[in-house]
Amino acid sequence: MKSIVITGCNRGIGLGLVKYLVKDKISPKYVMVTCRNLQNAKELQEIADANKNVHVLQLEVDKPETFDNFAKDIEAIVKEDGLNVLFNNAGYSPKSTRINFVKAEQMMETFSINAVGPLMLTKALLPILKRAATINKDKPLGIERSVVINMSSYLGSISMNNQGGLYPYRCSKAALNMITTSLSIDLKPDGILVTSVHPGWVKTTMGGPNAPLDVDICSKRIIQLLKTLNEDHNGQFYSYEGHKIDW
Amino acid sequence: MKSIVITGCNRGIGLGLVKYLVKDKISPKYVMVTCRNLQNAKELQEIADANKNVHVLQLEVDKPETFDNFAKDIEAIVKEDGLNVLFNNAGYSPKSTRINFVKAEQMMETFSINAVGPLMLTKALLPILKRAATINKDKPLGIERSVVINMSSYLGSISMNNQGGLYPYRCSKAALNMITTSLSIDLKPDGILVTSVHPGWVKTTMGGPNAPLDVDICSKRIIQLLKTLNEDHNGQFYSYEGHKIDW
Repeated sequence: MKSIVITGCNRGIGLGLVKYLVKDKISPKYVMVTCRNLQNAKELQEIADANKNVHVLQLEVDKPETFDNFAKDIEAIVKEDGLNVLFNNAGYSPKSTRINFVKAEQMMETFSINAVGPLMLTKALLPILKRAATINKDKPLGIERSVVINMSSYLGSISMNNQGGLYPYRCSKAALNMITTSLSIDLKPDGILVTSVHPGWVKTTMGGPNAPLDVDICSKRIIQLLKTLNEDHNGQFYSYEGHKIDW
Repeated sequence: MKSIVITGCNRGIGLGLVKYLVKDKISPKYVMVTCRNLQNAKELQEIADANKNVHVLQLEVDKPETFDNFAKDIEAIVKEDGLNVLFNNAGYSPKSTRINFVKAEQMMETFSINAVGPLMLTKALLPILKRAATINKDKPLGIERSVVINMSSYLGSISMNNQGGLYPYRCSKAALNMITTSLSIDLKPDGILVTSVHPGWVKTTMGGPNAPLDVDICSKRIIQLLKTLNEDHNGQFYSYEGHKIDW
């Protein structure tokens, strides 16, 4: 993999993925990472200062009207090589419990960030994803060719929902999983693989301090999974441990 | 079942359900049906003129700020009996094909109508749904007690997606299916059953003229399914023929 775009890297798993990638043997030529506010992303900027292959770009995933310009910025970096991997990691979860407390605005906002953003960003970056897939057409489906990873959650699995509640988050991730399956079919002729990933329950702002998993371990496992992606993973849902999850 | 609210009854399956219900043996005491524009709902008004148990109300399912007033109107009709059945039937499908043509606005609008509307309407009607469930607490789970039916589609089944595309519609119905499972858990202590239904591919404005199924047959089968709903259906997804569908 020569190039990867990862959204939402100011903190949490996104930041963990960048930290792991710059140390890893496969550290790509272009690690393009996004955050909503460049001023607030000090740790990310420090990583970029110390690693010339890391490019920090500003992006709000609920502003699809900015994606074409973002795609031009990415194209200016990767040029004729195209883009190997888009990792739709940025996400949002409102504090919300049972039916009595859910609000329409929460539903819309969470869907916009967690589902519409990844879909429209994939659409905007499609020409350069296709370019990488075409250049590497002799290689099997996977990160040496072209991949879209959507950061989902087991909370977005409808069949595993046995706790109820969490309407905005669960609905947005179920929709994202649907996007994964439709994209995997629509983009298969282009040689682009699409997969949903569950990152585990991780100690982040979203996961809270009681989560059993450290960001470092989760990030390492997700990059390991990324390396093994092949045709079997296309249009499927995998945990950070590499186990298949039912929709 | 003494009372039922059905949304989106100006045409298509909604209108078919009303036509079948007023002829059926179980014809409820209160058949409260909604449409976006009362002036355009001539056939529905004619049914109401000929059947005293039919009440036509104006409702736009993407305007949740109006739902509390709508709930008051329904309560004024059903009074101390509460509401037995809410049928979230109103839905929308934009013309849309592959990834190249999808728009963020379509995603948001379709999600608002097909997923957020049913959720927020259920929330608004919850006090009177609970009242019917409480009054009839000696009866088993089902339409003699209290039921929420969400009109989904097999196109909202992630595991059955083998054609791709249709992002706005598929995502909204996958989200609606998630709402069904969360509601079924959250409302179980209240004795309210919640199920997703696939109506078949029906000759309607949405289904088009090539659809194999007539509205009459589909409406009849759905009402038959409604009558048989029991604890086994709670939090599940059924076709109009009564077959269980995977998420």
